[in-house]
Amino acid sequence: MTHPAFSTDLSRLINPRAIALVGASERPQSIGGRTLSNLLDHSQIDGELYLVNPTKSELRGHRCWPSIASLPQTPDVAVIAVPASGVIAVMEECAARRVPFAIILTSGFGEAGAEGQRAQARLKEIAEQAGMRIYGPNCPGLTNVNARLGMTFSPSFPHDLVKGPIGLATQGGGLGRNVMQAMERGIGIGLWASTGNEVDLQVADFIHYMATAPDIKVIVTLLEGIKDGPRFLAALQCAADNGKPVIALKVGKSEYGQRAAQSHTASLTGSAEVNSAVFRQYGVIEVDDIDELVDTAWLFARAMPGEREAIGVYCSSGGTTALTADAVGTAGLTLAEFAPETTELLRSKLPDYAAIHNPVDTTAAVLSDADLVESTLGAVAADPNTGCVVTPIALDYGETTIRMAQTIIAAQQRVRSPIVPIWMSDRLGEGYRMLVEAGFAPPRSVGKAIAAIRRWTEWGRWHRSAAGRPARRLPAAVPAAQNEVRNLSELQAKALLEKAGIPLLPVAVARTREEARRIADGMGYPVVAKIASPDILHKSDIGGVRVGIADGAQLALAWDDIMASARHHKPDAAIDGLLIEKMAPGGGVELMAGVTRDPVFGHVMTFGLGGVYVEILRDVTRRLLPLSPEDAASMVREMRCFPVLDGARGRPVADVPALERLLLGVSEFVTANAERIEEMDLNPIWVGARGEGALPLDAVIVERGAA
Amino acid sequence: MTHPAFSTDLSRLINPRAIALVGASERPQSIGGRTLSNLLDHSQIDGELYLVNPTKSELRGHRCWPSIASLPQTPDVAVIAVPASGVIAVMEECAARRVPFAIILTSGFGEAGAEGQRAQARLKEIAEQAGMRIYGPNCPGLTNVNARLGMTFSPSFPHDLVKGPIGLATQGGGLGRNVMQAMERGIGIGLWASTGNEVDLQVADFIHYMATAPDIKVIVTLLEGIKDGPRFLAALQCAADNGKPVIALKVGKSEYGQRAAQSHTASLTGSAEVNSAVFRQYGVIEVDDIDELVDTAWLFARAMPGEREAIGVYCSSGGTTALTADAVGTAGLTLAEFAPETTELLRSKLPDYAAIHNPVDTTAAVLSDADLVESTLGAVAADPNTGCVVTPIALDYGETTIRMAQTIIAAQQRVRSPIVPIWMSDRLGEGYRMLVEAGFAPPRSVGKAIAAIRRWTEWGRWHRSAAGRPARRLPAAVPAAQNEVRNLSELQAKALLEKAGIPLLPVAVARTREEARRIADGMGYPVVAKIASPDILHKSDIGGVRVGIADGAQLALAWDDIMASARHHKPDAAIDGLLIEKMAPGGGVELMAGVTRDPVFGHVMTFGLGGVYVEILRDVTRRLLPLSPEDAASMVREMRCFPVLDGARGRPVADVPALERLLLGVSEFVTANAERIEEMDLNPIWVGARGEGALPLDAVIVERGAA
Repeated sequence: MTHPAFSTDLSRLINPRAIALVGASERPQSIGGRTLSNLLDHSQIDGELYLVNPTKSELRGHRCWPSIASLPQTPDVAVIAVPASGVIAVMEECAARRVPFAIILTSGFGEAGAEGQRAQARLKEIAEQAGMRIYGPNCPGLTNVNARLGMTFSPSFPHDLVKGPIGLATQGGGLGRNVMQAMERGIGIGLWASTGNEVDLQVADFIHYMATAPDIKVIVTLLEGIKDGPRFLAALQCAADNGKPVIALKVGKSEYGQRAAQSHTASLTGSAEVNSAVFRQYGVIEVDDIDELVDTAWLFARAMPGEREAIGVYCSSGGTTALTADAVGTAGLTLAEFAPETTELLRSKLPDYAAIHNPVDTTAAVLSDADLVESTLGAVAADPNTGCVVTPIALDYGETTIRMAQTIIAAQQRVRSPIVPIWMSDRLGEGYRMLVEAGFAPPRSVGKAIAAIRRWTEWGRWHRSAAGRPARRLPAAVPAAQNEVRNLSELQAKALLEKAGIPLLPVAVARTREEARRIADGMGYPVVAKIASPDILHKSDIGGVRVGIADGAQLALAWDDIMASARHHKPDAAIDGLLIEKMAPGGGVELMAGVTRDPVFGHVMTFGLGGVYVEILRDVTRRLLPLSPEDAASMVREMRCFPVLDGARGRPVADVPALERLLLGVSEFVTANAERIEEMDLNPIWVGARGEGALPLDAVIVERGAA
Repeated sequence: MTHPAFSTDLSRLINPRAIALVGASERPQSIGGRTLSNLLDHSQIDGELYLVNPTKSELRGHRCWPSIASLPQTPDVAVIAVPASGVIAVMEECAARRVPFAIILTSGFGEAGAEGQRAQARLKEIAEQAGMRIYGPNCPGLTNVNARLGMTFSPSFPHDLVKGPIGLATQGGGLGRNVMQAMERGIGIGLWASTGNEVDLQVADFIHYMATAPDIKVIVTLLEGIKDGPRFLAALQCAADNGKPVIALKVGKSEYGQRAAQSHTASLTGSAEVNSAVFRQYGVIEVDDIDELVDTAWLFARAMPGEREAIGVYCSSGGTTALTADAVGTAGLTLAEFAPETTELLRSKLPDYAAIHNPVDTTAAVLSDADLVESTLGAVAADPNTGCVVTPIALDYGETTIRMAQTIIAAQQRVRSPIVPIWMSDRLGEGYRMLVEAGFAPPRSVGKAIAAIRRWTEWGRWHRSAAGRPARRLPAAVPAAQNEVRNLSELQAKALLEKAGIPLLPVAVARTREEARRIADGMGYPVVAKIASPDILHKSDIGGVRVGIADGAQLALAWDDIMASARHHKPDAAIDGLLIEKMAPGGGVELMAGVTRDPVFGHVMTFGLGGVYVEILRDVTRRLLPLSPEDAASMVREMRCFPVLDGARGRPVADVPALERLLLGVSEFVTANAERIEEMDLNPIWVGARGEGALPLDAVIVERGAA
């Protein structure tokens, strides 16, 4: 089922039967001239290409048409390369002709001040009225490498020759072009969408397209800002449903980066923590740099991760073997324990001084014997406990290394587990070239190779675990921010939570000293008493809280003290009485959960250690709501201090199931009241020993003003 | 002043006036044959080269001598390439002739089982008796690129042509050769020592040599194990004294890596945490992978860090600018705030839509104007607030990129701050080659470039801060481990600490109930009482501790309870009475400090958060003893939870000066009793508010048995 956000099938944009190039030009350096050359000289056009230029009758021997209206057929795509001042008129023509897709290459719109923004709004209006979809403006165009079609002005298109299973969706063109040049590693990018100002079609639309495109296996995206959070999530969900990994680099991880991205795109970059949490939830593989992105994507393009996660290391230098083993260990990955038959073969073939247990160090002495290397490497790669084999090549030793490359290529042909050669040397000799040509896309350092394998392995685990589960519920669209918000009182907040089935300690407002006594006697001592007043938010600050009240006499004293203190500090406050609450049992751990509304994605829960350590140790984890049961379980376990809940150092094991139920309950409550709830804070949450429950001791809810 | 460990001047080993090659051979693939070719065909020998081979009268037209004894002069260096079985006889000849240095290339010694180890011990004996120094065995030899001298069998020596300011000291040959191939980046390695089994000369000796060698500016080392900790530290100190950075990669950071390194070198890898702490203390720049090592070392080879730490970013792609700003921010570095004249120039030259504040995004539109780029890049590089300028080049656009490279080269000639171009594309075109030839050694990704700049900046800060301080006191040699150790009682431990001037709460042993009362009355209540028995270590477990004793009556009860409990649980224990201790005031923070003896480096202090969180959050920091005052200050501030001591969230500011004094006091105490103390644990340490002090509440000392 297609998500409503993606009602348009983009196939005719990406593989059009007829294209009109509006603004085709003979000036080779102009946008129109470069696009013309890419289409005429470097594309393989299966359908029709119409050149539109009212001042010419022909260009390079091809007929020119004066307008879109004059064309003998309606093109699937109008590629618009006219100056900014002429774009709106062309778009109106396209709308009149019912052209389904326009690629607007021209700059000078949303990125160019108030006037440009007005023009951009007009483009959107024209398209919406005509049901036309816009790609751009201010973009390098669309590059369909697998179909050899360059609807782009990029002078690099003629070099984009390596067809392949990677799909690339970017906003800016510069970084996208950088990734395109990683084709040099021998694996290609089949389709590159670089969506520029995203007045209509966004990165999300192309992720969604690639999710079902048969020629795309791996999706790569570079993001500066996300225009429409829920649409983006729906695209991610579609990729996940189709078993395609999405590898994302999102700038704006630091204040510097956010500022730079905002000045570049004039769009919200969003919170890096929220982005990362959402990515994790939707199985997106987040990377921090382009080289990591390329190493990871190219590994996925070679092979998808299987159930076997353990790694074999096969190397001929002792120091390099140790370095690689270290990288495996610090990444939290596992070295395979070889099956007896593997070890037996290694023992029988390799010399005495070689290390035959994983990591295998053959020593350099054996490198001259290609048969020996192939049989032993082959045995490691075929080992039933090994999911992938890393073969670091520390240096380029000319002929010896060429032989090693040939041996790796031959060994790979007989096993399914990927063999990952790491070309560590700065000398890129013939052995390197051979590995590239054979499609191994060798990473260039041990750390980068292992980081890619870690991401590959983790995605595989995520993908397998997600397979049996019900589809993730997407959040609703995010309503625009409102200025009018109001704080509920603690009692109002707790009443809402109670109605939602969230367990709380008994609590009630007493209007008189006698009522307080009756309430407390009913719930049993000890109790806590807090001033109840809509005008007093920070109760402790005015002496408005007493804890550990042990009996009726102490309660009477507390009543008098609190009232006197409140009247003294806030003589004008309207006072409802005292909130009487049963006190939490001793022991237990203090945690906290908060919900905020992210402007891109919607409600996000932050959960973690409570008290003074929250801010200092930042031992918190985040998830977009609604939570799945797996989200709740993993949030609790992701905290660094989880061992405190799990019986570390002789502590009682905490009531983790109750805590998970509480988080899910809060998620359901917020989701059911998504329009209304702006923010929420349960701090502290008391968690007792197994069976004792998990209880919010305080609750703050900020509502959107309904006036 | 030279450290006694380095009594031999290695100049004649590294630049010998006369060399004997023992085992010179005409077989081109043999060790002796390859070494012969490197010396005859690829070296530039200033002095004499004698070929020793008793079976030949000449080799390739050069006279052969039958033995070392027969040579007309005593060579400075004997390069020994005979088979393992013949090495000892050759060494005996060298000893008789008083040859000062032997390079033993041959394998089959310490790495080859019990027999090899015996032979290696014999080599050591021969050399020690004769005052001869050994390099090797089991090593590829010594490569002096700056003097064009290859006393090595490596077939790669003919390619080691780039002279330069980097010195490389390694143990294994494979990884070292990998670093040598990074000469491809256009900056050379002047000297490579690869010390193999280190029967005598170690990596430390070559770090020490390079520290004063005039042609070496930057020292790089790859370590698998450190044979002699104090000698290694002395070499590091010498490098620091001479203002030369040492960049180190040490394998064994994970259990896997330790296991692999141990099986490779048969030597202790030591604790990764201790190594890192020691490196930090001695200003060593630790890296995790070879690519990081090369990026960092090559940056130092280009320029030393100055006082200005802020970074300028100059780029022509918006996304790349944001990515770079992000990397600067997440690395904790600072973007420079440009001086007004810089901003003014950028404003006047760059188009309106460019970002003229740091990070500068010129947009791709200006790339065609080389003069504009040079003047604006030059202005950024000359900015008085900017210490280094990063120019990421996202893609290889042929001519445009060549022009950019030329402009960077031209701009660099007029400024001192290094301009660091990042070549991000996998396409290594002509622009890349030009930057390499001009000595820019461009890093290949934003993350790697910024990581190198971070290390460069931090080392500069360390170096400046170390400049004014007294020389660091080196630890004493580490005595061999002993099996006989014993625990002191808490009272004995505290008595030792008190004698050493460490502040403690009043404490005494009471032998009777009455004495307990007298002691407690004297110190004032509340007090703590603990069972005092040499046979009871875990006092709480048997009910042997009472805290918060408020008066004499409670104390009497505590006496009875504890004694009854002790007799019940440990009927045979000898009981001295009760330890009566004044109770720590309320409030305060609980920390801990421990001292252990590292087998490589000696006593190491671990300091951090106390209680249940120590193990779970691992918020600890380590230093080798003796501590300097700066060490103590930085240990306290390195804790993630330092804000808890520093007044976070309205807490009182803790008595940090007293805490630092305590750490220094413990360091002095352990250093003064280094032979005796095996281990020590102060947990918890109570730290009060400013002025209230820092007091160890419990003390465990494990002594070496003097019995």
